[in-house]
Amino acid sequence: MKAETDICIIGAGPVGLFAVFELGLLDMKCHLIDILDRPGGQCAELYPEKPIYDIPAYPIISGQELTDKLMEQIAPFDPVFHFDQMAIRLEKLEESERFPQGGWRVTTDQDAVIDCKVVVIAAGGGSFTPKKPALEGIEDYEGSSVFYSVRQMEKFRGKNILIAGGGDSALDWTLNLQPLAASTGLIHHRDGFRAAPDSVNKMEKLVADGKVAKHIAKLKALKGSNGQLEAVIAGSKETGDFEIPCDTLLAFYGLTMKLGPVGGFGYEVKDGLIPVDTEKFETSTPGIFAIGDINWYPGKLKLILSGFHEAALMAQQAFRICFPDRRLRFQYTTSSTDLHNKLGVAAE
Amino acid sequence: MKAETDICIIGAGPVGLFAVFELGLLDMKCHLIDILDRPGGQCAELYPEKPIYDIPAYPIISGQELTDKLMEQIAPFDPVFHFDQMAIRLEKLEESERFPQGGWRVTTDQDAVIDCKVVVIAAGGGSFTPKKPALEGIEDYEGSSVFYSVRQMEKFRGKNILIAGGGDSALDWTLNLQPLAASTGLIHHRDGFRAAPDSVNKMEKLVADGKVAKHIAKLKALKGSNGQLEAVIAGSKETGDFEIPCDTLLAFYGLTMKLGPVGGFGYEVKDGLIPVDTEKFETSTPGIFAIGDINWYPGKLKLILSGFHEAALMAQQAFRICFPDRRLRFQYTTSSTDLHNKLGVAAE
Repeated sequence: MKAETDICIIGAGPVGLFAVFELGLLDMKCHLIDILDRPGGQCAELYPEKPIYDIPAYPIISGQELTDKLMEQIAPFDPVFHFDQMAIRLEKLEESERFPQGGWRVTTDQDAVIDCKVVVIAAGGGSFTPKKPALEGIEDYEGSSVFYSVRQMEKFRGKNILIAGGGDSALDWTLNLQPLAASTGLIHHRDGFRAAPDSVNKMEKLVADGKVAKHIAKLKALKGSNGQLEAVIAGSKETGDFEIPCDTLLAFYGLTMKLGPVGGFGYEVKDGLIPVDTEKFETSTPGIFAIGDINWYPGKLKLILSGFHEAALMAQQAFRICFPDRRLRFQYTTSSTDLHNKLGVAAE
Repeated sequence: MKAETDICIIGAGPVGLFAVFELGLLDMKCHLIDILDRPGGQCAELYPEKPIYDIPAYPIISGQELTDKLMEQIAPFDPVFHFDQMAIRLEKLEESERFPQGGWRVTTDQDAVIDCKVVVIAAGGGSFTPKKPALEGIEDYEGSSVFYSVRQMEKFRGKNILIAGGGDSALDWTLNLQPLAASTGLIHHRDGFRAAPDSVNKMEKLVADGKVAKHIAKLKALKGSNGQLEAVIAGSKETGDFEIPCDTLLAFYGLTMKLGPVGGFGYEVKDGLIPVDTEKFETSTPGIFAIGDINWYPGKLKLILSGFHEAALMAQQAFRICFPDRRLRFQYTTSSTDLHNKLGVAAE
């Protein structure tokens, strides 16, 4: 996939989404890259149903509602999303007809290549990465027999699957993959699951019906060769060690945030954050901006509402880079017919 | 009226209101002073029913709705409002038991005296006043027959209205009130309108259909008694003087914003704005902050969403002044039980 656009935003959390709005008001088109499979970032991934109380003028709103409202607000600007992938490389483009000021090429781990005039890092706490079971040599099996997420269910049809974990992801995938799999096991260190009661009940029913094998034990080791898993060694005080034959291990131990590749794109990074000025929220590399939780400046608070402000000021400078010959007029959405047309709300 | 509080906020527009929220989360109590008779500032005064499109996560919201939502959000913190008055004096208070760091005394033109630890100027464009037609005795009709804004459209149902002015407000209200009014006239000194072309077209259509009477003339005098208007005398070189019968005159000659007394409180003022830093949004006088449209710093945009951010960062420093012995902990409303208690939303 190859694309050209004005702005490439890395991160589709609330701040990245609102940036589309502020940039759109100034005629800039955006592509967004996110490692998750949908917009909303932490809000949608970590607390979709938890109420947030400090979004201005929302006495209460959930992370999912906030995301939905922002998606509605930016719809007039037709942003292009690249989900389920991580921006892994950033290269400077030489001056050209399309990029008279030079530009940037962003490449993702799914080989999307996006050429743009301006890059906006809105990556929050960084990229979410799965916590891995502490098993010797596990990396030899990753991608072939060991997985931390399910991108395509079909890939697991006919497999002898062992699912590790006790939360919603482990339970959901036990229920979803069991009908496809040749055999399904679930392993958790204690006989208590922190998941939706309904999912737990359904899982227990499958266990009672002999369709899922439940193991209350810890993972101890992997057995196999050349990346092909043959069994997992598990154990507990009660049972001692035992073998669970399987060709696929799916571990759902939660997610941790890592700065990830955006920490190595060339601009200054300090204590895992990207220092910016408070006038344009530009990084130490001109043309690359950082907004939201990932940036730092004196007084910085990791609040969504601060990211919104940062997006608005960033957009002014992005405009100057994208359209060096155009004059920037400051207009209000309340009164500007020009902005009403862009928003598709012009009086009929 | 004499009062003591932690924070005195001058201006009860959206930014002043949201400041109550951010200060409240950090245990500071607020009094607010506003020249208007209700909260909302410009939003409520200039465009209560006009849609705003750039409040984050509100694809569309009116000034009045925004104000209502903010009032709901800050209700747990019980702010005290002093409406219909202007802060006219600011004095430094000596150190005392109540104000170990010294404090401030704010006095209004209605003789309210508010002693506080911190002053926040959130006065927007300053105090604003409608430009009035220069007509003898017009003040006798103000509030009964002559108006400079529309607060409730219903009030004008069945009236014989004359609207004066040639800008967007005059045109918008001609279009909006015509369906309600018994009769609608529009008077402007020349046959050219500085308003959205679409509004002008709609108005001309109503004129062609006989639903709006357009007068190209100047206002000369008012005719009526005891505050009840009977007619307006108008005239032009071409027509000479003539009478327009009406019981209501709505004049939209624009508003002037005056910085007013807050321009003379001792801190630096430059080009009618108050310079602040971008870490704490403090003026050149420690303990006095300026947030929202009235402040200035490099990159400043007069956006409501920027004022929200400024309020949040200001509150951190206000806390240090109000509670020099307490440690400031940064907490999220999504996860902090302490904040949930303050907001009255603690899980039962």
